[in-house]
Amino acid sequence: MSEAPSPVSVRVELGARSYDILIGPGLLQDAGHHFAARLPGARALVVSDRTVAALHADRLLASLARAGVAATLLTLPPGETTKSFDHLMTVVDRILAERLERGDAVVALGGGVIGDLSGFAAGIARRGMRFVQVPTSLLAQVDSSVGGKTGINSPRGKNLVGVFHQPALVLADTDVLDTLPEREFRAGYAEVVKYGLIDRPDFFEWLEANRAAIFAGGPARVEAVAASCRAKAAVVAGDEREDGDRALLNLGHTFGHALESVARYDPARLVHGEGVSVGMALAHRFSRRLGLCPGQDAVRAEAHLRAAGLPTRIQEIPGEGFTLEALMDRIAQDKKVTRGSLTFILTHGLGRSFVARDVAPEALGAFLAEELAG
Amino acid sequence: MSEAPSPVSVRVELGARSYDILIGPGLLQDAGHHFAARLPGARALVVSDRTVAALHADRLLASLARAGVAATLLTLPPGETTKSFDHLMTVVDRILAERLERGDAVVALGGGVIGDLSGFAAGIARRGMRFVQVPTSLLAQVDSSVGGKTGINSPRGKNLVGVFHQPALVLADTDVLDTLPEREFRAGYAEVVKYGLIDRPDFFEWLEANRAAIFAGGPARVEAVAASCRAKAAVVAGDEREDGDRALLNLGHTFGHALESVARYDPARLVHGEGVSVGMALAHRFSRRLGLCPGQDAVRAEAHLRAAGLPTRIQEIPGEGFTLEALMDRIAQDKKVTRGSLTFILTHGLGRSFVARDVAPEALGAFLAEELAG
Ligand SMILES: NC(=O)c1ccc[n+]([C@@H]2O[C@H](COP(=O)([O-])OP(=O)(O)OC[C@H]3O[C@@H](n4cnc5c(N)ncnc54)[C@H](O)[C@@H]3O)[C@@H](O)[C@H]2O)c1
Ligand SMILES: NC(=O)c1ccc[n+]([C@@H]2O[C@H](COP(=O)([O-])OP(=O)(O)OC[C@H]3O[C@@H](n4cnc5c(N)ncnc54)[C@H](O)[C@@H]3O)[C@@H](O)[C@H]2O)c1
Ligand SMILES: [Zn+2]
Ligand SMILES: [Zn+2]
Repeated sequence: MSEAPSPVSVRVELGARSYDILIGPGLLQDAGHHFAARLPGARALVVSDRTVAALHADRLLASLARAGVAATLLTLPPGETTKSFDHLMTVVDRILAERLERGDAVVALGGGVIGDLSGFAAGIARRGMRFVQVPTSLLAQVDSSVGGKTGINSPRGKNLVGVFHQPALVLADTDVLDTLPEREFRAGYAEVVKYGLIDRPDFFEWLEANRAAIFAGGPARVEAVAASCRAKAAVVAGDEREDGDRALLNLGHTFGHALESVARYDPARLVHGEGVSVGMALAHRFSRRLGLCPGQDAVRAEAHLRAAGLPTRIQEIPGEGFTLEALMDRIAQDKKVTRGSLTFILTHGLGRSFVARDVAPEALGAFLAEELAG
Repeated sequence: MSEAPSPVSVRVELGARSYDILIGPGLLQDAGHHFAARLPGARALVVSDRTVAALHADRLLASLARAGVAATLLTLPPGETTKSFDHLMTVVDRILAERLERGDAVVALGGGVIGDLSGFAAGIARRGMRFVQVPTSLLAQVDSSVGGKTGINSPRGKNLVGVFHQPALVLADTDVLDTLPEREFRAGYAEVVKYGLIDRPDFFEWLEANRAAIFAGGPARVEAVAASCRAKAAVVAGDEREDGDRALLNLGHTFGHALESVARYDPARLVHGEGVSVGMALAHRFSRRLGLCPGQDAVRAEAHLRAAGLPTRIQEIPGEGFTLEALMDRIAQDKKVTRGSLTFILTHGLGRSFVARDVAPEALGAFLAEELAG
């Protein structure tokens, strides 16, 4: 039946909760086969958003049907506001209405919003059902579908409610990214660059050489997704519940979250990956200013992001509100606060990031004031 | 400061998630000390129901204050309907409003309703905060506070949504049970008897000799709670996520749940422990009828439950609806169904229960028809 080449497989090692991420072009048409091989006899509830469902749900459902998997589809509105208690209840209720059992699976077909929401629902319905990720955005393929973090937003903040619930399988079809809006692709690419900047200087160099090919599709895209998943899998395996080393994955994110918050999470102004891009550029420039990172490394990191069409300066974000006070306030409130002390990811150079726990607020304030002055 | 004797300590062995259950009279006045010793520096949100809070919250809060623990109180309505999505949101929102961090603790002061709800909230707020149980009903002290099962009800059924989230500490003050309505005490006692009937014939015999003393309070009550916790802890340690042996804990529960469901969970008609009592008596009589259990053992189990003031026959439950059809239907729908096959706990005699997976529906129907005929 299958015409797709064998997918690349990345293993997430978590003892009894280990699982495979399969990555390749055309994988959706083999999804049923891979599902049935890993979860024999299981039924499926496919959860998607309306945009993604219209483009890709038919192929997934047809593939599940060919493999003899009983499946139904639930579609939700696209967008970050879908990560709410209300929609969580909707998914859970549908799981129970279908009388799915713990061995059956919730299948998330979509970006990080659908993955986070459906994974959370799978984590709490019957105190934990099987869960399969079919990420369709670049961000979801390289980041949110790997690692088991699931959740929703609260009126009090983003991602404040959720569970760690590992998927049983991740199927990343790199062809589905062809329908992703260019801006979303670029935003996801910021997270790809992040893995290079954290601790993989060779990967960063490879990205410098292959950026255009990755955007175009083909083997370079598969390799970029696979290398990113390997990088994230290694971090997750060492720190499943985010108590320690996983903090490095927040490179660019303390700044990025502050920017997103000031921009009121309005995607017309800033999407997550763009905030991360500006945040990583800021982290490098701040590290340079503190004498930690060579100037040429900061320049090179920034140049690559810019070449990919990503913003690297606060001034590039449309709209008002980016005052020193607003940013410092958001940074102090960042949820990565442990008993009052701020965790900041800084860098000694390309691919040499580290966790800094003692950044003086004055130095940060002075740096940001300069950035804002342009 | 403390005048209470040293509590009995029962360890729940779950590797990195191990914890102690402390049991004794007057323990509430030392709660702050035990909390601070296990969770140094942590703040607390105490969750309770209005009935329990009016009787016992002051002493707990005063004890926490004496130990230097910053704590606030959230009270909810008493009753099973509090285990809902709405109240879950209320607790989670309060946790976030107080800006509690992952190292801070939700403290459940109440019966199983408050424990299940607060534990679930603690399990999902910030993807898992610390959790402390201060069970105030006998059922909560001997059953629901031990083992990490948390959750809420769905319009589609009881306890269908939740997580496994182990507490960091359980504090069972046996004096608090003095204010528990007699009927609730008896209902909790059914679960105590259950541990004897599952696999502890010596404990069952000890209960026969000490029942009055347990109801009166004093050392026998402490010992009954401690022995029950030891029994449950042993099962939980072997099967944290309820995949296998934990099924024995459902002795009397398949029948019991069916009875509760037919009685529409109306506590005026039947509370959980009463359903379990009738269910255990039915399980013994059914086992006898199948030639599995000596008649005198079934008689003795039933006599002890009756001496404790518990019902043992379907006819004792007030109200209509207990038809063969209704009961068989509920039993077939019981959530302890694995791919269509029913799991039933039967017994070879006092303290010799086992998991039966191949009960013929005809035999069950014939037995229940006889029971209903009187
Ligand atoms: N769980 C984690 O570890 C983790 C990590 C990072 C981000 N996240 C979360 O992920 C979310 C962001 O993920 P996202 O960027 O994928 O957002 P998203 O799910 O909202 O997807 C972005 C947009 O792209 C559309 N889309 C997705 N795939 C498409 C495709 N193939 N073709 C056409 N359109 C497509 C969606 O409909 C949506 O409008 C955030 O909520 C964030 O908190 C979670
Ligand atoms: N998590 C588990 O493993 C588990 C196991 C068994 C039962 N449960 C759950 O536990 C719940 C039943 O627990 P419960 O019987 O404790 O119910 P409950 O919490 O409703 O308490 C029963 C009643 O007694 C009152 N009460 C409690 N302590 C009191 C005290 N010291 N003095 C005066 N009144 C007091 C309460 O206000 C309530 O009205 C059910 O929801 C059931 O699903 C959970
Ligand atoms: Zn990110
Ligand atoms: Zn019970």
